[in-house]
Amino acid sequence: MRDVAILGVGQTRFGELWDRSFREIGIEAGFEALVNAKLSSSDLGALFLGNMASGSLVSQEHIAPLILDYSGLAGRHLAAVRVEAGGASGAVALHQGWLAVASGAYDFVVVGGAEKLTDVSDTEANRVTDGTTDHEWEAVFGATLPALWAMIARRHAHDFGTTREELASVAVHAHAMGSKNPNAHYRNRLSLEAVLEAPPVAEPLGVFNCAPLSDGAAAVVLGPLERARKFTDTPIKISASQVACDTMALQHRRELTTLDSTMVAARRAFVQARKERHDVTVAEIHDAYSISALVALEDLGFVAKGASGRAFAAGEFSGKGKLFVNPSGGLKAQGRPFGAVGVAQAVELVRQLRGEAGERQVSGAEVGLAQDVGGTGATSVVHLFERVN
Amino acid sequence: MRDVAILGVGQTRFGELWDRSFREIGIEAGFEALVNAKLSSSDLGALFLGNMASGSLVSQEHIAPLILDYSGLAGRHLAAVRVEAGGASGAVALHQGWLAVASGAYDFVVVGGAEKLTDVSDTEANRVTDGTTDHEWEAVFGATLPALWAMIARRHAHDFGTTREELASVAVHAHAMGSKNPNAHYRNRLSLEAVLEAPPVAEPLGVFNCAPLSDGAAAVVLGPLERARKFTDTPIKISASQVACDTMALQHRRELTTLDSTMVAARRAFVQARKERHDVTVAEIHDAYSISALVALEDLGFVAKGASGRAFAAGEFSGKGKLFVNPSGGLKAQGRPFGAVGVAQAVELVRQLRGEAGERQVSGAEVGLAQDVGGTGATSVVHLFERVN
Repeated sequence: MRDVAILGVGQTRFGELWDRSFREIGIEAGFEALVNAKLSSSDLGALFLGNMASGSLVSQEHIAPLILDYSGLAGRHLAAVRVEAGGASGAVALHQGWLAVASGAYDFVVVGGAEKLTDVSDTEANRVTDGTTDHEWEAVFGATLPALWAMIARRHAHDFGTTREELASVAVHAHAMGSKNPNAHYRNRLSLEAVLEAPPVAEPLGVFNCAPLSDGAAAVVLGPLERARKFTDTPIKISASQVACDTMALQHRRELTTLDSTMVAARRAFVQARKERHDVTVAEIHDAYSISALVALEDLGFVAKGASGRAFAAGEFSGKGKLFVNPSGGLKAQGRPFGAVGVAQAVELVRQLRGEAGERQVSGAEVGLAQDVGGTGATSVVHLFERVN
Repeated sequence: MRDVAILGVGQTRFGELWDRSFREIGIEAGFEALVNAKLSSSDLGALFLGNMASGSLVSQEHIAPLILDYSGLAGRHLAAVRVEAGGASGAVALHQGWLAVASGAYDFVVVGGAEKLTDVSDTEANRVTDGTTDHEWEAVFGATLPALWAMIARRHAHDFGTTREELASVAVHAHAMGSKNPNAHYRNRLSLEAVLEAPPVAEPLGVFNCAPLSDGAAAVVLGPLERARKFTDTPIKISASQVACDTMALQHRRELTTLDSTMVAARRAFVQARKERHDVTVAEIHDAYSISALVALEDLGFVAKGASGRAFAAGEFSGKGKLFVNPSGGLKAQGRPFGAVGVAQAVELVRQLRGEAGERQVSGAEVGLAQDVGGTGATSVVHLFERVN
């Protein structure tokens, strides 16, 4: 297999983009990534597009060729493939793009992620996102996606004493970073009190413990590492790309407070990259709900089981420790356009590893980790990225 | 890149399977393929699942881990990826599976295709399938998928004198073969008169010129060719796998009667496989509408532009010529469970190349071609399969 590098990145603003269509945001992110990679569209071989639910949300299936077409590339008859894995669609699309270049079948490809969640009612959007859980055994009985994550939070509190203040610290950090990110859905800071006093969504998760429904798109350009120097002085190598799945329904898991899919994907990823946990200084992780970030940090091996709440609240992952998480503001503040999230994580990490993250820059970032989750962990994806000097 | 072989195949009956759920049919096809490959599920590394619209049709996104889960494989934490490309979803999933094994990242993978179209009303199903065209520029103006293909048929008749009798001969052949296929949605023979007298869907296409909405699933197991002999005496090599895209909207094409995406995918596939058209003796092609099969035969290079109608009606592709098309009965008679079609084409060709097709066996089948189409040709996929002696 060939080593694969990210040569360029692009991203739209995340938010309620009512004045812009699905195709428009997809194109904007893709072109920005191409320009950033200093590639011409005539160099491209394929597009892999992560998207959760365009059929339900914009009445359009078959969206990968649509984006290709409206980017003016239809005449070149590239391959265009949509990849879906619930909220992890973007990260799985990145895995497919990585396979495509690693195999040698394609040289340069674009991996995009795009979602338009605010063109339908919140009720309909929530019905769709609940479809990333087990419809027949969870959603039809009224178990929504936040309610399922709330169960994880309650169990975590029961087993380990995790407090509402500790959960809230995740959201406070996210908004602190979102305030520094011009693409973020939310750029306001949040106080601990505001998070604690917010109306409940599913106890113990309040409104500010839950990421928003966002519109947005992100894209990266991949190519063989050996040719990357032609295009950039700072190629970012994809050192590991791992997808692992688990039961759809939360009730069928070994235990509620561990995402085995994340544990397994991380274990495989560190082996693949020949790296250790302590090599990672910056990570973008799945904080769709505050509890998601806490279990992720445990499942990824960055903190002992049960200790994530105390560590987070103590600032261990927001400046005081060796690992800095979610400099982008994460899903909570940068936003949650489901299928775009996994690609946006890669965009942020590339900016961090290049040293181009401005006010959000994490110092000394050499190895970055991205973790993305679909549903309550039926899919987890872990990528490791590395600056090649 | 490693050579990739198909080691096993499985398929459910296609039809109106009201008594069986999406997950049930997905599992049946997958297990049959595993047993057929003489593989254990513990050998597997990934599942790639082609599906057009499970979100709209069964309120379930994130279906690849769902099928993995209900197959009892969740505990092994394999990768599971859904691939969507309209009606070509299954064929594109096969492309992704091929990339996965060719790259060396995975050894043995299952590629499945599944769709459940009859759990919703025909109106809803048609709304969904129309979503494989350009929603904003075709579907919203009332141009349905059959209406767009009817425009292609009218133009073909105008330019080349293709007759309704010639179109009808495609459906007559499909049902003749479907009558020999125990998995077929329709096993009745059709007379030319019956096709001609059927009520119109979109002139000149009558009901019997249009493939049905079906439920069904199909699966193949892929592995490295070099290890295939351990599992089978008749490994079938994937000699070429090519995806090519074009404009979403028919009105933006260079001309109405040519699918450039099919032409380009075929050209690339024959180069990749180092084969010529005359090497191919059996083909499964996209006959969702009778005209689809005629333009496919021209675009694939099996007959001169404009001559397909006369050649088909003369029996050139149904026994009298060197190439036999759609021994399975095609989409018209075997059925059209959108996302499953491309995988079912591979299943039929493997059976043909192994000499296991029973009454449908095409004699001397050594090289087979599959062509699958999404929408009106925004995606085309061409695979070449070869018996390795």
